[in-house]
Parts: sequence; C-alpha cells; structure tokens
Amino acid sequence: MPKPIVAGVGVVPFGKHQQRSVVDLGAEAAYLALKDAGIAPERVEAGFFANAVASRLFGDSTIGQNVLWEVGINRVPVVNVENACTSGSTAFYLACNAVAAGQAEMALVVGAEKMCVPEFGLINSGESDWDTQLGLVAPASFALRAQRHMLEHGTTVEQMAQVAVKNRAHAAHNPVAMFREPVTVEQVLAAPMIVDPLTRLQCCPIADGAAAALVCSETAARDLRQAAVKVEAVVLGTGDYQSPQDLAHWETDFRVCAQAYEKAGLGPEDLDLVECHDAFTISEILHYEALGLCASGQGGRFVAEGHASLGGRIPVNPSGGLLSRGHPVGATGVAQIVEVVNQLRGQAGPRQVQGAGVGLAHCMGGDKAGDTKSCTVAILSA
Amino acid sequence: MPKPIVAGVGVVPFGKHQQRSVVDLGAEAAYLALKDAGIAPERVEAGFFANAVASRLFGDSTIGQNVLWEVGINRVPVVNVENACTSGSTAFYLACNAVAAGQAEMALVVGAEKMCVPEFGLINSGESDWDTQLGLVAPASFALRAQRHMLEHGTTVEQMAQVAVKNRAHAAHNPVAMFREPVTVEQVLAAPMIVDPLTRLQCCPIADGAAAALVCSETAARDLRQAAVKVEAVVLGTGDYQSPQDLAHWETDFRVCAQAYEKAGLGPEDLDLVECHDAFTISEILHYEALGLCASGQGGRFVAEGHASLGGRIPVNPSGGLLSRGHPVGATGVAQIVEVVNQLRGQAGPRQVQGAGVGLAHCMGGDKAGDTKSCTVAILSA
Repeated sequence: MPKPIVAGVGVVPFGKHQQRSVVDLGAEAAYLALKDAGIAPERVEAGFFANAVASRLFGDSTIGQNVLWEVGINRVPVVNVENACTSGSTAFYLACNAVAAGQAEMALVVGAEKMCVPEFGLINSGESDWDTQLGLVAPASFALRAQRHMLEHGTTVEQMAQVAVKNRAHAAHNPVAMFREPVTVEQVLAAPMIVDPLTRLQCCPIADGAAAALVCSETAARDLRQAAVKVEAVVLGTGDYQSPQDLAHWETDFRVCAQAYEKAGLGPEDLDLVECHDAFTISEILHYEALGLCASGQGGRFVAEGHASLGGRIPVNPSGGLLSRGHPVGATGVAQIVEVVNQLRGQAGPRQVQGAGVGLAHCMGGDKAGDTKSCTVAILSA
Repeated sequence: MPKPIVAGVGVVPFGKHQQRSVVDLGAEAAYLALKDAGIAPERVEAGFFANAVASRLFGDSTIGQNVLWEVGINRVPVVNVENACTSGSTAFYLACNAVAAGQAEMALVVGAEKMCVPEFGLINSGESDWDTQLGLVAPASFALRAQRHMLEHGTTVEQMAQVAVKNRAHAAHNPVAMFREPVTVEQVLAAPMIVDPLTRLQCCPIADGAAAALVCSETAARDLRQAAVKVEAVVLGTGDYQSPQDLAHWETDFRVCAQAYEKAGLGPEDLDLVECHDAFTISEILHYEALGLCASGQGGRFVAEGHASLGGRIPVNPSGGLLSRGHPVGATGVAQIVEVVNQLRGQAGPRQVQGAGVGLAHCMGGDKAGDTKSCTVAILSA
C-alpha cells in the first residue's frame, strides 16, 4: 500500500487561552497547516478531528465540522474521534489509513482541546469505570507503575526527576511549549507530592491548545511547497485485558511499538528522535524500554546518563514533551507529529536534532486495570 | 475496491434501561452480533464504537475499549467515534472503509447510548454554538424546515402526522421498538406542541439502547453461518456552510444521497426498503425527496398516499424509525443497518418487506445555520 505524506503542519502555542474556544483554537491550527502546505481548503477531501473533554466540559459535539467550516472546508466527510490521550494520534491514524487506501487524496487532521477551566478535575479512564470509582485516577495508576519499577529494577526518584529536568531543558527552545523555565532534580523532588513517588513536576500539566497536520498521497504531495515527510508506519492497539498485567513491563506498549517497527521495516537503531507520551516521568522511562531504546529495566539509567537528551544518543521529546509543552489531550498526538515533521524538515531551530532522518511519535491513553486502553505509534521519515 | 459484507447483527431493545450502563448495553449488542455471525471474538481485527452523550452525562471516555473487552476482544485497534446523530453510521462507514481497504478482515461496529436520565435536556448542535445559544435547538430548527415546506409546497400538518402514524404502525411488529401502540392523525396533532407545527408525537423520543454489526471481507464472510449482505456503497458528507441554505430543499441530503447512488450504481427505483432519519416527521418528508423516492416538494403527498407504508411502493422505516423505535443517538445508525440486514435476509418477521433485495440506511446529524453537520447513506444488497 502506498505510504502517506505529511505535507503541512500547524500548532497553536499550548498554555492558557481563556478567551478562545475549542473551535477557535482548532481553526487556527488548521489554517496554519493549510498555509504551511500552501494549498487551498477546497483540495481537502476528508477531515478527522480529535477532542477528548469538550463534550463533558462544555456540552459540545461534532466540533470538527465547525472547525473545518471556519477555514473553508465544506461538504467532505468529517469524523470526530475520541480515544483518551490517543485521540489526536487516532485521528492521524484514520487519516493515514484513508489516504493509504485511496479513499482521500488529502485529509486534514486537527486536534484541539480546552482544559484550563475550574470544572476540569482529575483525569481518569472514565468516571463510571470501577478503577476510577476505586480511586485509580491517572496519577495513582502511574504511581503504582513507578513503585513497581523501583522495586523490580532499582530505578530511583532522582532518575525519574531527570526526565522532567531534561524535557524542561528541551522546552526552553520551543516557543509553543507551556513551561520553558529550567528546573533542577532538587526542585522536581521538592515539588508537592501528588501520589508517591510522583511530585507535581513529574505530572504533565493540563493545557489549552491545538495542532493540525495535512496528510496526502504521494501524487497529491508532489506539487506542494514543503519537503515531503513520509509515514512509514502508523499503528493503533488496545490493551490485552484478559492477561494478568506486569506494571513494570507494559505489554501493550511493547506490542504496539514492535508492530510499528515491523510495518516500517525499521528498528530503534534507525531512529534519530522520539516524541513519546511522557504524561508522567515514569511513563517516559517505561516507553524507552518498550521502544527498545534501552534494555528492559534500564530506563532510569538511560535518562540519567543523558542518552535521551538533545545531543545524546537518541533525543526523546525534543519539544519538551507533555511534561513541559503541556497536555491538551486531543491536541497532543497531533502536536507530536508536528514536532517530528519539523525535525525531519530541519526546521526545529535551536532544538534541531542534526541530520534527523527518521522520527517516531508515540501515545498512550487511558490506564485501566493495570493496562492501557489505547496506544499508537507512528514512524516518519524525511 | 472489494465490497464489505455485513455478516452479523445484534440489537438491544430500545427503551429505558435504568439499571444498565452504556458499556453493559454495548456489550450485549456486540455479543449478539458475534453470536449471529457465529464467530469467536478473537477473529475481530478492529473495533469502531459510537456514542454521543456519555461523556457529557457520565464523564465517560474510551468506552469502546470497555465494551469490546466485555466480549473478549483484546489488543486490536479501537476507535471511539462521535458525529452527533450520525455517530453510529459514521462508525459503520469507518469499519466498511477499513475492510474495503484490507486494513481489517473483520471489524465490529457497536453503537450504544443511555439518555433517559434527568440531566439529558434538549438535543442541540453543541452548547457553545451560536445557533444553540440563540435558541435553535433541534426541534426549533426542524420546525423552521416544516414551516418553509408548508409555505413552499403546501405540505399539511395532517401529511406530517401521517409519518408518525405510519411509523408507529410499523413498530407494532418490531419487538425492539420503544413505542408500539398505534396512534391516529388526530392524536398526533392533539399532542402537546413542542415547536409549531411539531407536536410531541412528531419528535422522536430519546432512549437507551445499543446495536452492533460485524463487517467483514468477502473472503472472511465465506465460512460464516448467515447469508452475506453486501455493502454496495457507504458515504459520509458534511454541510456546505458557505452557500445560502434553502430550508425546504436540503442540499447536503440531496448531495450525499446522489453520491451513494452513484457509488452503488443503483438508483431509487432499485430500492426495496429505506431506513431513514425521521428525527421529526418533517425530516422523513425531506428525506423522501432527497432520496428521490418522489419529486421535490411532493413528500407530504407521498406519505399520505401510502407509498412509504409496509405494502406500499417503497416501505420507509419498517422498523418504526426514530419516531417509534426511539433514538439512542449513538446506537441509531447501527440499528438502521441491523434492520436493513434483517430485511435483506428475510428475517424481519411480520414486518418483512417481501422479496427485499436492496435496502438503504440514511442518517443526518446536527442541524446548524440551516444546514446539517453530517449525513450518511449506506446501500446494502442481499
């Protein structure tokens, strides 16, 4: 099957946008992606819109249609997608599938979210879920993973804190990141405790923001202004709820990463950078291992030794990641694609990974019963 | 591209299910569809789940994963879809596209909704939309269409009431319909006025319920127990918000129906039955015209003359439609597929359309600025 191309990207700075609506944020990102690709809205043949919490917070629905209407995209199929923290990456997955199958020559993916309102509360895997009702909101579930990883592999709180320190250092060079002031290991560990051992600086912040990516066929991409970035593989998977879970070894994460490598015909040794779902510091450590960047159990050491830093062996989250760029849920998965594309084009400015040729974007969403509800991996090449 | 097959269907009776959750309803429908097809859950390679209001009402997310888990479907890609009243039909559209493209051999579509709770309120196109804030909730928007149709085409309130009478008569033979007691034109017109000229019996009732359909490739369908029903075309489209709208002539509805006929290589004269989106009596009249069942402006006369009744020229909503089966939003689009499949298999019991060979399912969702946010048409053949 022919591989889709990402031909345009756009992102609205993540942070607090008190005066703007979800539609307004999404439409700006969509406009930026169209402008980046240099195409008229009439050429877009399908739209995939991601949002996770606007229905709950604002009573809104079918938001994608409003977003696309704002930028002059009419009549085409529009799908609104929710898949927890993988909402944006699932929309990207669907767009790539539609283009790969010849169902659309050009598909626009937009993710937008507005969370910085008093009603938001704690993020969880669904309020009716037993997990949530028993108190297993997201920070609690990841704290269990952290405790288990510390017990099994000797991972230290200082190593976990290094993830936050590194990602904040990266974010200093990213104008769309929410938090850009450097932090130290001491500051991370001294921050208020949320769920032991995760302090506040080890939990990603909620945010308002939006991101967009234009996916098109090789033929359609030929006359566009930007260098083509190819989608080598994009995989979506769900947890295996029937098998007992090992909290320190995330089976779904390993499985989906392995599928993506197989589809792309590439391995971790081919990657020049990774954007991964560092919702919590321990998450990024688990993802190193699932992605094969280091051996199982060695994630703590991997970050502490600087391998995941800009200038290190394989920079992870050069954008600052969720921990520093912020996490407007529906937008995050698309923002990862934007960062990977900018890196592969050599347009990432002071945070550019030199000679970046292959990049990977990874999301996971909704911890439940010790496993994840959704996981996505996309591998892109220059 | 090869045409997908619907190989299994299931539906949970629409009505009030006070003691059951959205997951519980969805899982029962999923189980029934798998059982109907006679396959083990392990054979399902992708899941598409539709729901419209559970996030707003219950704070739930990524519900599809929970539903599939309940019936033993693990690991596969799962996408949660929201597209207002076309949520279920959009999930079906995505499943058909995935199977047609060879991205899955078998995909399960589930739509489930729970609305009969005091918090539900009035349905609208999104609470932040100007339309809603200015009072254009769904019944108001359709009342405008009715007034315009009456003015332009001389359609009468009695003709509109006939839609409700007919669909209630059909529902008498459908054990999964919410309301099965016959009503008369007089009763429909004497019911409490909601928005002039639409009385309560001309507005579809909210409901709890779920429906599921198993979509698979021709190859995968070969060894299954049920007669194959082929998806000749499935189309999703959005409004054209840039053009001024004629309330009595629904451009999006006409356009999407025409696309579906073209894709299927079939026309209205080939249809043996239609399930259409009779959210209000006037809606069904508009859909007759868009579907080419009668000339533009003649929808009122078409129903009054009995052409849309069981035994008539082209039975519309033999299931009872939204008006009598009930409208659990996320489930409706899938329930239409279930009805069409049952009819095409000759398994519709006392409401069977004799010799049914081709059926059409039509949904529309989210009226906004005089146009619809989403419209779907699927054409199936025995």
